[in-house]
Amino acid sequence: MNIIEIIEKKKNKKKLNFKEIDFFVQNYSQNKIPDYQISSLLMAIVINGMDLDEATNLTKSMIASGKTIDLSSIKGLKVDKHSTGGVGDKVSLVLGPIIAACGGIFAKMSGRGLGHTGGTIDKLESIDGFSCFLSDEKFIELVKKTNISIIGQTDDLVPADKKIYALRDTSGTVNSIPLIAASIMSKKIATGADVILLDIKCGSGAFMKNQKEAEKLANWMIQIGKKMKKKIKVEITNMEQPLGKMIGNKNEVIEAINTLQNKGEKNFVDLIYSSSSILLIESKIAKNEKEAYKMIDNVLKNELAFKKFIEMVKNQGGDVDKIQSKNWWNPKYSLDVIANKSGYLYLKNSMILGLVAMELGAGRKTKEDKIDNEAGIELKKVTNEKVEEGEVIIKLYSSKKINPNIIDKLSPTFEINPNPKKHKIILKKIS
Amino acid sequence: MNIIEIIEKKKNKKKLNFKEIDFFVQNYSQNKIPDYQISSLLMAIVINGMDLDEATNLTKSMIASGKTIDLSSIKGLKVDKHSTGGVGDKVSLVLGPIIAACGGIFAKMSGRGLGHTGGTIDKLESIDGFSCFLSDEKFIELVKKTNISIIGQTDDLVPADKKIYALRDTSGTVNSIPLIAASIMSKKIATGADVILLDIKCGSGAFMKNQKEAEKLANWMIQIGKKMKKKIKVEITNMEQPLGKMIGNKNEVIEAINTLQNKGEKNFVDLIYSSSSILLIESKIAKNEKEAYKMIDNVLKNELAFKKFIEMVKNQGGDVDKIQSKNWWNPKYSLDVIANKSGYLYLKNSMILGLVAMELGAGRKTKEDKIDNEAGIELKKVTNEKVEEGEVIIKLYSSKKINPNIIDKLSPTFEINPNPKKHKIILKKIS
Repeated sequence: MNIIEIIEKKKNKKKLNFKEIDFFVQNYSQNKIPDYQISSLLMAIVINGMDLDEATNLTKSMIASGKTIDLSSIKGLKVDKHSTGGVGDKVSLVLGPIIAACGGIFAKMSGRGLGHTGGTIDKLESIDGFSCFLSDEKFIELVKKTNISIIGQTDDLVPADKKIYALRDTSGTVNSIPLIAASIMSKKIATGADVILLDIKCGSGAFMKNQKEAEKLANWMIQIGKKMKKKIKVEITNMEQPLGKMIGNKNEVIEAINTLQNKGEKNFVDLIYSSSSILLIESKIAKNEKEAYKMIDNVLKNELAFKKFIEMVKNQGGDVDKIQSKNWWNPKYSLDVIANKSGYLYLKNSMILGLVAMELGAGRKTKEDKIDNEAGIELKKVTNEKVEEGEVIIKLYSSKKINPNIIDKLSPTFEINPNPKKHKIILKKIS
Repeated sequence: MNIIEIIEKKKNKKKLNFKEIDFFVQNYSQNKIPDYQISSLLMAIVINGMDLDEATNLTKSMIASGKTIDLSSIKGLKVDKHSTGGVGDKVSLVLGPIIAACGGIFAKMSGRGLGHTGGTIDKLESIDGFSCFLSDEKFIELVKKTNISIIGQTDDLVPADKKIYALRDTSGTVNSIPLIAASIMSKKIATGADVILLDIKCGSGAFMKNQKEAEKLANWMIQIGKKMKKKIKVEITNMEQPLGKMIGNKNEVIEAINTLQNKGEKNFVDLIYSSSSILLIESKIAKNEKEAYKMIDNVLKNELAFKKFIEMVKNQGGDVDKIQSKNWWNPKYSLDVIANKSGYLYLKNSMILGLVAMELGAGRKTKEDKIDNEAGIELKKVTNEKVEEGEVIIKLYSSKKINPNIIDKLSPTFEINPNPKKHKIILKKIS
């Protein structure tokens, strides 16, 4: 077998078998095939496609390229959650403690963020002392003891995906449903969960530009999951609107805490209830949505989920006093965006908000960039809230002086209309 | 402009404009774009195609990546000839002197051979002292003085094609008509000829597997030529049969000399008459085919073409006495292939003959390989010649001992049939 034969086969719209897929995945992962041969193959895959068998085999091969985590010593159904990259997406920080507080098992391995979408790991690392890099044994021990741990993915987990993704990103071969599905599924399955909730973002700035494409991706991942004996649930959510009111790191941790103390922003809370109830039902803890919602009500009102969060932070070395103190988040500079008329606010193009947050210091442009934990954005008003001319609608924060010109960049991110506009966060649930 | 946008455009079946094509050609040629981005783009071109404007622009950009030869100081129409790679293809060594002897101007720059197809340059370099690397001034001076010179292409001629071709060869992106057309046309046009005869080989082992594809390529090159004010003539010829009786280097020079002395093998002589008459007519030396054939008859019978060849060899430093001596070609080892029955010989799969010749030492597997000028193959019998059981049909030569097992490899290259079989060297002429 040689790589040229495999490239020619896909170029001629033929189906690749497991051996051929495994050949290029393992050899590329081990630096035995040069980038230019794999990018040519990837382009042939992007244009000529892959079927479900090929995508499943690609998922299996990528998993086999590195180590996997065996969670089988933990009793019960382990659940995990993955989002394709939302702005202000602190869902895991709230969802995890809720599941654990209700008796579910939340064992999550998360990637680091790059670009406009901050990673869960970066948010947790804004907490002084918090460690996301624990040994597998420690991770399993914490999950067994407390039903929750969130750690970072190490480089030896699905290394083939890391290499292939970096190449796709720089060779114009990102947008392929089989490649995206295999990339996400390989990472999720390698970390050992039984039930995986996928939040596929949809809209401008998202991986999937429209709902039809997002549904297609969802179905591919559900089918791959089926073939690999994993239960996959999907929510397709609207990327146009940021999640909650905070975009950044420390400020998102604070918003997560507020939400866990039952003081969350309505749209964000709606998503949390929806996602949590799916996982509680799949974990066989709640019989139906009604029962699940009751359980969630209980753990939020009685701050049981909040206590789980504090327990997790403490167990992973984080300073739990500091995050509960008033002045933990204390950015040196801020800048207000003022309403130039009165009306109903409508937020849109959340990706631009994400990019501005990155520019303020909250995200990384390159892997080497250091994050400014104070930097970020606060939405003082949310969609369909009434605003008066002269009121602050958006507040920007940073440890560095903020150039006032940045406000111009935000103009495409909101409208002020005479009447409220329809909007929806959860577009569809698929299983 | 950036390369990812260009890749995405072609991936989405959009037409690239001149600026975009020139951007990737010049930047890649100058090592400013990595291989893996260009191989991804090439695969998108192979699958989604290019139109005639794009292929012409690609030809222009590739020419602009290096130096060009200006032959305008030479009066009259300069002619050149290119073959897509035949086995035993010594056409230029005979055609060039015929054209020059008839008063035409044959100014050829030729590439070095790699693989089963020996290059014209390699054949000429088997002559002691012969130099294929002259300055442009010397080349032009010789053409002015004697109407003929054949030299090698230097690295600064169409460097973009060299780089792109090497990448295509190793990334499964060879078989694309626009890419092949632009590659050939850029090299031919850069060397300054006004009239270019292209011999497109067709059949197993050739670039073009069938005549329909070969005709398509021919029409693309004619159209590109038209857009660039060059006259392109095409012959589509059968690659199944080797050209003449000799495959190798010294032995092909000897066959060329024999043909120039009017003692050539019939099929090869037929092709020479056809090709020469096309160029004599296009050079406005002969009015029609009949007149051209008469002129060719004359220069062959009176050895005027042979004298031109000797003049060229002498002018480029070659030992003209040695090549006319009986023992110039003197291989140490030989091995006979014997007919196992009587009947009419039919030669086929000439590529295998080429590969065996390479194995004997007559060709290069890698650029670094050194050629054994004594090595090669002699066809003792040609297609439709009667053979008796026990007669030698093919003779192999080398400076190294020949492993008798090599004979097994030759069995797919001939049949011995009870009756002669139809065969044709020139499949079609297109202009």
